[in-house]
Amino acid sequence: MMPSRPTSSTEKNLLQTRQRIYLDHAATSWPKADGVTDAMVEFLSNVGSSASRGSYASALKASELVRSLRFKLAQFIHAESDSCISFHSGCTHALNSVIHGLVGSSKAIGDGSHLLVSAIEHNAVIRPILVAAKSGNATVEEVPADKNGLLSADDVISRVNGATRLVALSHVSNVTGAVQPITEIGAAIAEANRSRTESDQILFLCDAAQSLGYLPIDVASLGVHALTAPAHKGCGGPPGIGMLYLSPRWHSAIQPWMQGGTGHDGRSDTMPESMPAKLEPGTMNLPAIAGWLAALESMATSGELNESPNESAALSQRLHVGLNAVDGIKVFGQPGPLPIASLDFGPDLPPDDAAAILDSEFGIEVRSGHHCAARLHRHLGTEAAGTLRISGGHGTTSDQIDAVVAAVSEIAAQITSLA
Amino acid sequence: MMPSRPTSSTEKNLLQTRQRIYLDHAATSWPKADGVTDAMVEFLSNVGSSASRGSYASALKASELVRSLRFKLAQFIHAESDSCISFHSGCTHALNSVIHGLVGSSKAIGDGSHLLVSAIEHNAVIRPILVAAKSGNATVEEVPADKNGLLSADDVISRVNGATRLVALSHVSNVTGAVQPITEIGAAIAEANRSRTESDQILFLCDAAQSLGYLPIDVASLGVHALTAPAHKGCGGPPGIGMLYLSPRWHSAIQPWMQGGTGHDGRSDTMPESMPAKLEPGTMNLPAIAGWLAALESMATSGELNESPNESAALSQRLHVGLNAVDGIKVFGQPGPLPIASLDFGPDLPPDDAAAILDSEFGIEVRSGHHCAARLHRHLGTEAAGTLRISGGHGTTSDQIDAVVAAVSEIAAQITSLA
Repeated sequence: MMPSRPTSSTEKNLLQTRQRIYLDHAATSWPKADGVTDAMVEFLSNVGSSASRGSYASALKASELVRSLRFKLAQFIHAESDSCISFHSGCTHALNSVIHGLVGSSKAIGDGSHLLVSAIEHNAVIRPILVAAKSGNATVEEVPADKNGLLSADDVISRVNGATRLVALSHVSNVTGAVQPITEIGAAIAEANRSRTESDQILFLCDAAQSLGYLPIDVASLGVHALTAPAHKGCGGPPGIGMLYLSPRWHSAIQPWMQGGTGHDGRSDTMPESMPAKLEPGTMNLPAIAGWLAALESMATSGELNESPNESAALSQRLHVGLNAVDGIKVFGQPGPLPIASLDFGPDLPPDDAAAILDSEFGIEVRSGHHCAARLHRHLGTEAAGTLRISGGHGTTSDQIDAVVAAVSEIAAQITSLA
Repeated sequence: MMPSRPTSSTEKNLLQTRQRIYLDHAATSWPKADGVTDAMVEFLSNVGSSASRGSYASALKASELVRSLRFKLAQFIHAESDSCISFHSGCTHALNSVIHGLVGSSKAIGDGSHLLVSAIEHNAVIRPILVAAKSGNATVEEVPADKNGLLSADDVISRVNGATRLVALSHVSNVTGAVQPITEIGAAIAEANRSRTESDQILFLCDAAQSLGYLPIDVASLGVHALTAPAHKGCGGPPGIGMLYLSPRWHSAIQPWMQGGTGHDGRSDTMPESMPAKLEPGTMNLPAIAGWLAALESMATSGELNESPNESAALSQRLHVGLNAVDGIKVFGQPGPLPIASLDFGPDLPPDDAAAILDSEFGIEVRSGHHCAARLHRHLGTEAAGTLRISGGHGTTSDQIDAVVAAVSEIAAQITSLA
């Protein structure tokens, strides 16, 4: 049932003056960080060349952009060196590169090995892991989440056994915004690794799709050996580029899942053995690399990154308090560092319809459905139709949060009055 | 030995007025087609959303761009339907998707199957095929090329045997510009397929990295079952996006090599079974999709595509005739539809040094080395240091061709006088 729209004069005025209220940052950021579009235009207009593919000046300029971004990202997440950062077409590609690159009896995903994932994982984590486990003859175990999409560190740690070789967890749930206890789990894995031989080490993979650019990331503090992220979410960069961090101890173990030209070592029939070249075949997405670099520079300048966690946490608090005060809806997630929440209007208004009303009637853009994280919905009790997800990001204002809470409240009241 | 530069006053004037002469179109096109940058800026500034990831208006606009480009490309290459076109991060990714997606005993790359490639193949073809053949327990045979990088159709056809399941050939050599006899080979493969069972069919894969946007492509006329191409070469589009055409008869055979979220069918643990969704996990590179669409529209408007083959052939003629008149160099390739040639100054001036001189002294940007096609250099006799490659494209002028011929001539004369 779609509630018809009320038409008070106050609301008419509100509609007339409304702006586009974009609250789907967990899918992709918009607007992009300052300077991103300009940097892409500058590259396309005045450079244009491929990186590592020529010795003329504009090609060297392209290579320089790649080096600069690699250096900046390595610094940003406190990687051991630039060679720990490889570029991919996005977070999904980065995840596939590391997961499939570790298949084989002598690597993390091998005969009889035990892989630990969680119920909150995105399909970009769980789907490649299930395929890799099948081809590598490994088993996969899933750690449950609570009703807000939060994992218990003890739950994860207690499932690590002698055969466990890979633990793959998302840093932040893309459905509820729950920040997972990565540091605690990382410490336990480090402890377990200390008493293991070189060939029995556990690789801790963290999908930072929802956190890079929003939360401080220090791979050593988190205790992760691999970490993936795209440019286009928390960093405010463009789509089409993502990164994999891989700890030096795993550099020789990983095999190139994708093969092609690299602009050097061209005479060999196989990919180069050195990182990051072994994982980077093909023409790089230079406009996106220029855009991501500009985004990071812009964030550093504006102090949007890490320096303003209180503001983001205040928005999260405002969103959750507001939604929890609305009668007739169920809210998933809790106040935290990121302004994300999922909700359910109940059987009378499926999430897809609610999202359509928010867009058409209020100019509010939010996402509905399963958010590519189906397993979590079994824990939330929203398996059938998923949830309506509200996700703010950099640039989200308290007025926008108030607007979505007011709109949700109005829709909920309408349902109740018609029930 | 690097020749010192002569300093005639004529030449000084030439240098002072010189423009950037970009002749590395075989690596990537520059400048981009009209409208490409504007379309990318428009997307980033005013749309921004992910495709297939939301039901709000801007997300639908993003999905509409994807549909439009898919439709246009399907028309462009005369594909059976839009579902035959899948999007990838580039041609390398498209090649990996189809090659690795066909591994398995019941598919093209299976136990004991015979795969035919050629000596002109780019590493983006040969490297994944060698890896796939190893994992699928198939054998790979290489068809030799002549000294201009041209294959003989008879040479290819005579090597097809009862076990042959995949023939993978580039449409155009990226080193010499030689256009391969794809149609003739395609017809022979079609003939062979007619007497074979469903499970013994040969898949004919064509790497159109160097041809899409320069030569007319009709997949039915060519007789190919799979074809890959990027946006950023002959189409004048941006890097970061490419396509795979796959004939309907192979849709059910191909397996998703990459796995992740698709924005729908989110509740399944596996990728969707339908094409093209099964090959398209992850957030799409929408700015690049908008750019590629604009490039195709621009080419259709300007008549750059297909309608002006004579102009491009005239440039090729001019380039080859000019270079062949230069004493002391060896030229690879022949006049044809594309203005591409490779050359060698001999042991006194390695290609890398020659490219550096052309850039620094003449403002001419060309590529040196093996061009990621090492096997061909064994046939050209340039295995050690590769060649200097001159490659024009859309927008290349006869003045630019004359300038590079004059510069090559001057450098060659300098070497001769110092010898």
